[in-house]
Amino acid sequence: MRLLRIHTDDGLRDAVLTDDGRVAVLPGAAEPFDPARWGARASAAEPAVDFESVRVAPPLSPGKIVCVGLNYADHAAEGGQQAPAEPILFMKAPDTVVGAYDDVVIPRGGEKTDWEVELGVVIGRTAAYLADEAEAMEHVAGYVLVNDVSERHFQLERGGQWDKGKNAATFCPLGPWILTADEVPDPQAIKLGLDVNGAVLQDSSTAEMIFGVANLVHYISQFMTLYPGDVISTGTPAGVGAGQKPPRYLRAGDVMRAWGDGLGEQVCKVR
Amino acid sequence: MRLLRIHTDDGLRDAVLTDDGRVAVLPGAAEPFDPARWGARASAAEPAVDFESVRVAPPLSPGKIVCVGLNYADHAAEGGQQAPAEPILFMKAPDTVVGAYDDVVIPRGGEKTDWEVELGVVIGRTAAYLADEAEAMEHVAGYVLVNDVSERHFQLERGGQWDKGKNAATFCPLGPWILTADEVPDPQAIKLGLDVNGAVLQDSSTAEMIFGVANLVHYISQFMTLYPGDVISTGTPAGVGAGQKPPRYLRAGDVMRAWGDGLGEQVCKVR
Repeated sequence: MRLLRIHTDDGLRDAVLTDDGRVAVLPGAAEPFDPARWGARASAAEPAVDFESVRVAPPLSPGKIVCVGLNYADHAAEGGQQAPAEPILFMKAPDTVVGAYDDVVIPRGGEKTDWEVELGVVIGRTAAYLADEAEAMEHVAGYVLVNDVSERHFQLERGGQWDKGKNAATFCPLGPWILTADEVPDPQAIKLGLDVNGAVLQDSSTAEMIFGVANLVHYISQFMTLYPGDVISTGTPAGVGAGQKPPRYLRAGDVMRAWGDGLGEQVCKVR
Repeated sequence: MRLLRIHTDDGLRDAVLTDDGRVAVLPGAAEPFDPARWGARASAAEPAVDFESVRVAPPLSPGKIVCVGLNYADHAAEGGQQAPAEPILFMKAPDTVVGAYDDVVIPRGGEKTDWEVELGVVIGRTAAYLADEAEAMEHVAGYVLVNDVSERHFQLERGGQWDKGKNAATFCPLGPWILTADEVPDPQAIKLGLDVNGAVLQDSSTAEMIFGVANLVHYISQFMTLYPGDVISTGTPAGVGAGQKPPRYLRAGDVMRAWGDGLGEQVCKVR
C-alpha cells in the first residue's frame, strides 16, 4: 500500500494511492499513526480522485526523526570525510516536516542551503535493544522519501554539533506517501535521486549505503527507543551542493525534484 | 505560578502549587500547553492536597528539546574542552522525558551514564529570527529543572554526534513544575545543584553561564523556529561524573537529587 495524508476543507484526511496512481480518501478524520489499522481502513476507501486534484500533506507526523550521517561512501568522500566506522546519528525536530510539494525556505543568514535525498524508514513497533537484523526488519512499517535539507554554514562553520544546520523551518520535506514494507522485498535496491531545475545532481541506489536499513534499525535501537511513527533518515548519496565543483547551493526560485523507486516524487520550490 | 501535571485515576490533570507547597488540581483533563490560559485556569483550582499525596508527571510534553553544550566555563574545563565561541546545540527527543520522581534507567551497554543538572527555558510564543535579547525574553513562558542525563561512552566514544548519548529512554527528568517567568526577575541568578546518594557534586548558579538565557533564546531563534512548549536546556555546571577524579558514573541503586531555586527538586533512582 501507499498511504498518504491530504489537506481537505474538512481538515486532514488519510488516503491510499490506487494502482493507477489516483487517490482514494479514507473515512473519517486523519488518525494517529497505527499500521495495524491500515489494511482495514484502506478497504473502506472512497472512490478515487485524480492525484493532481488533492493537496498532499506529510504522510505522518513523526515522533522523532533520527538521521544517519555519511552513510554513502561517495558522499563522505565528496565532503573530504572518511567513511565512518559505525553510524553517525543526529536529529531533526518533527516541526521541520513539510509536505512533498511544499516550499523550502532558505533561513535568514543561510549561505549554503543544500539538498540531501534520502530513504526514510518508518518504524511500526516499539524497538529497544533489538537482538539482530532480522528482528529489526519486523519493526519496519514502511518507507518514505526524505529530503534532509541542510544549511552547511550553520551545520559546519558555526561551532559544535550538526543539529544547528538541520533544523530550520521547512527543512524536512517528507513523502508524498508511505510505501508499506510488504511491498519492498529489498530495501537495499531502491534507486533514488534529486535534480535542481532539471539538472540531475543525485542519482544513486540504496545498494550503495554503508550501513543498510536492517543494520541501522538494529544499531539505533541500542542507543534509544524507537517508537511507532518515528522515522530514520538513512543518509544521502553523493551529489549534494557542497560536493559540486564549485559548490552550488540553493537560491530562491530553484525547484528541487526528489524521487525514489516506489516512493513517489517531491517537487519543492525554494524561497 | 508553579504549574504541575499529575497522574490521577482519571488520567493526567493540570495543577498549581500553592504558596504553602500544596497541590491544587485544576478542573478537567490536562490541556495542551497554552500560557494564555494559565491564569484563568489557576483561579478555578480545587482545594489543595498535600504534595506527597500526588504522583507528579512531567509538567509539559515538549515539542522539541534543544540542549546547549559546554555553557559553563568550569564544566568545559573539567572535560578538557575550551569554552565555545558561540553556543553548541544538540537535541534530546521529547520521548526521553520522565517525571521528577521517576527512575532513570542505565541503557544496556552503557558504561558511563552521567548526570547534568540544568536550567530549562520553556518557550511561550513562536520565536523566529528574534531581533534582540529583550524580544527574546518576551518569548519565555517560564523555567523548569532538567537533568540532561548522558551516556558518555555513547556520546563521545562511538563515533559522530553527541545525540547518540543523549537519547536513551528516561534520560530527561523534567520538572517537578514550571515556574512562570513573571516570578523570575533574573534568570542568571538561579542556584542549582545535584547530589548523588547525598554527596553534593554540582553546586553552582546560572550566574556562571557563558551564554545567558536571553542570549540563547535570541541565538537559537536564528537557526530554528521555537514553538510554544519547546524547552531549551541551557547547559550544566561543573561536577558531572566525567569530571570527578577519578570519574564516577551512575550505578543501579544510586539516587540523584537535583534542585534549583524556585524550581523544586527531582529525586530519581537509578536502575
